Amino acid sequence: MRLSRYFLPVTKETPADAQIVSHKLMLRAGLVRQTAAGIYAWLPIGFRVLKKIEQIVREEQDKAGAIELLMPTIQSADLWRQSGRYDAYGPEMLRITDRHEREMLYGPTNEEMITAIFRDAAKSYRDLPRTLYHIQWKFRDEVRPRFGVMRGREFLMKDAYSFDLDEEGARLSYYTQLLAYLRTFQRMGIKAVPMKAASGPIGGDLSHEFIVLAQSGESEVFYDSAFDGFDWQQSEVDYGSAEDLSRLFDQVSGMYAATDETHDQARWNQVPEARRREGRGIEVGHIFSFGTKYSASMGMTVQTRDGGQVHPQMGSYGIGVSRLVGAIIEACHDDNGIVWPDAVAPFKVGLINMRADDPACASACDDLYRRLGAAGVETLYDDRDERGGAKFATMDVIGLPWQLIVGPKGLEKGIVELKQRATGERHELSAESALGRLAAA
Amino acid sequence: MRLSRYFLPVTKETPADAQIVSHKLMLRAGLVRQTAAGIYAWLPIGFRVLKKIEQIVREEQDKAGAIELLMPTIQSADLWRQSGRYDAYGPEMLRITDRHEREMLYGPTNEEMITAIFRDAAKSYRDLPRTLYHIQWKFRDEVRPRFGVMRGREFLMKDAYSFDLDEEGARLSYYTQLLAYLRTFQRMGIKAVPMKAASGPIGGDLSHEFIVLAQSGESEVFYDSAFDGFDWQQSEVDYGSAEDLSRLFDQVSGMYAATDETHDQARWNQVPEARRREGRGIEVGHIFSFGTKYSASMGMTVQTRDGGQVHPQMGSYGIGVSRLVGAIIEACHDDNGIVWPDAVAPFKVGLINMRADDPACASACDDLYRRLGAAGVETLYDDRDERGGAKFATMDVIGLPWQLIVGPKGLEKGIVELKQRATGERHELSAESALGRLAAA
Repeated sequence: MRLSRYFLPVTKETPADAQIVSHKLMLRAGLVRQTAAGIYAWLPIGFRVLKKIEQIVREEQDKAGAIELLMPTIQSADLWRQSGRYDAYGPEMLRITDRHEREMLYGPTNEEMITAIFRDAAKSYRDLPRTLYHIQWKFRDEVRPRFGVMRGREFLMKDAYSFDLDEEGARLSYYTQLLAYLRTFQRMGIKAVPMKAASGPIGGDLSHEFIVLAQSGESEVFYDSAFDGFDWQQSEVDYGSAEDLSRLFDQVSGMYAATDETHDQARWNQVPEARRREGRGIEVGHIFSFGTKYSASMGMTVQTRDGGQVHPQMGSYGIGVSRLVGAIIEACHDDNGIVWPDAVAPFKVGLINMRADDPACASACDDLYRRLGAAGVETLYDDRDERGGAKFATMDVIGLPWQLIVGPKGLEKGIVELKQRATGERHELSAESALGRLAAA
Repeated sequence: MRLSRYFLPVTKETPADAQIVSHKLMLRAGLVRQTAAGIYAWLPIGFRVLKKIEQIVREEQDKAGAIELLMPTIQSADLWRQSGRYDAYGPEMLRITDRHEREMLYGPTNEEMITAIFRDAAKSYRDLPRTLYHIQWKFRDEVRPRFGVMRGREFLMKDAYSFDLDEEGARLSYYTQLLAYLRTFQRMGIKAVPMKAASGPIGGDLSHEFIVLAQSGESEVFYDSAFDGFDWQQSEVDYGSAEDLSRLFDQVSGMYAATDETHDQARWNQVPEARRREGRGIEVGHIFSFGTKYSASMGMTVQTRDGGQVHPQMGSYGIGVSRLVGAIIEACHDDNGIVWPDAVAPFKVGLINMRADDPACASACDDLYRRLGAAGVETLYDDRDERGGAKFATMDVIGLPWQLIVGPKGLEKGIVELKQRATGERHELSAESALGRLAAA
């Protein structure tokens, strides 16, 4: 993408109403723009990050055997009356009356709707187990929206729902999502630790929050640093194997991790002191089993293999997709701006033409841009007629992993400069070598 | 995807409330499920079709230089007061009051919001021209929602907005989108003819509706069959060339095409009789220029090259993404069900195991399924223990382009059967040849 034809409204000012660093940087780097309290438009590079996160979530859900569909944002109040939650839900629910005076709402979550959809179609043990998910905008009318997209009102969430014949099956569905989450967050280049959360109706151990460590986090967290050694992408757990999944769960459960809500000082004291990590964290995912809460209240039954009828055991599994953009920035930034992990960066490379008014320099940059594109390297090409300093500041604040800097003096010597954003390391090398490195990186 | 682990609730019954064939087939084939009047959940195969259509729209917008972002669904009433449309818009606007008694609405379109976003960031002629687009859910509170997703209340739309310094630039932006639309619809395997629509504020010729021909269409249409000979994907028009774009526009404008609203009998009579096509059609896109309507009312100005200030010339360009699913089915079906064009089919191949209880047959099918996957062929594998007749009916109604049928008798002879859904043609051939054909098709 040529910056001269793009829409990237970066600003130098730090917005007054932004309290935390991710909110400031998202506004400064032109990722989002607030359009109403707690509601944001995703500007082009913010949108690209959001899509990359969404796609990683999707791929890991698909690998875990979850099936994607898409439920609408507007729901009928009657649906929520079936579960009894319509009156119980607080003022966070955005309630709407349509032109025919029917009571509607903007879905804050989808347990009722997925239960109704699956209830009307699944009648037999052959239709189970299934985990269905969607990635859709939700609305929660927060009384005081703040922290940018971290506590907005309209937000993008992945929510999956599992249906099983019995508790044993529900456990395996839960373990499957647990592993999918570990792999999802690892692929994004961040560390999200599953922490025991307040227990659900069945099995007190089947509720975990996934927490990204960051100073601005809303919770205090305590965890065993043994977690840090695991590579969940590489772990040889077969989603089809109950034994593998159970072993994984035991492994995760065996390492202490809790927020202040569930913290247990006695158990904490048993963790070797050198491995105790304390800090603050941001919740980016939550998984839990809730048994037959919705299947029973909404009258969903399926026939078992021996001809009986049961209410399926359910679980739900959320990831805050838009919130993750903020959480990743909280975990990945420095004084100059965002430092995107490769997997979620809006572009991989920022190509900087130091002298757009120099025909030789422009021609060399055009050629590099074309060849980067041909090699499949996503490149933002700053071809504008601006001073180098301004271009560096823009590239630093938007945080692309690599900067490729081309100036007339270097070109005379056959040299370009490659800078890695995270380390600040700069290397002078030939254009050919730079291309090779970026294509391989 | 193995059907035994998928969620595909096909039904034999024809739903009573469905009046048109696409609505009936979308319900029967398990593409959607109504969750409230005019509001639908997209079940897994419906979701896949929706995503394919969305992706074609996105790729063609990107090729045409439009820049993607994403605006939220909920908007502030104040924004619409800036343009004067808040009070003017009828009861189709879903008006909402939040917990702080602020007036909000579910966006039916985004002219106001995009103007506000771009106004606050673009100040100079260097920031123009730009065309920005998003693909987002909209809501129009239709008094009588019907025809399934064709006239639903919550619907997915691509809407693009162009900003230019002058009318000449606005014309080129319009021509660019015109070509992008011709290419978009052609890639989907349907014929959508641009028809002159009621004229906008500047240049009476800069307003076209794109109409798919179908008996259930809401409009009567008249067009010159000379249209049918063009291959817009192959046409050598460079988006960067004003000359190319103008020639394209003249070419399109030179061929008669109008709905009953703009029909001109005198001009129609000049079309050679053999080339006159009359019928009914469904609107799937609309493009138009509207000059400075929003930039002036909302106070957007940019500095010109000579230091003056102008209100940018704008245009908007919509495609009904969810509506297209219905429109394509209206144009592509037969008595047995949907006949998807390849580019938007949820899967390319339906692999049918005629005898799931026969180990040799199951093993041959498993092997074919694995190899189709390795060749990148999207396959829905009916591995269920059902009778062949039911499997054929399911595959026919969901309309995948190819069916690969494997039975024990054929296997003994080293033969499988390949059926093309559109023509009904069946060929017996070796598994090897079938794989080769499907990978190449």
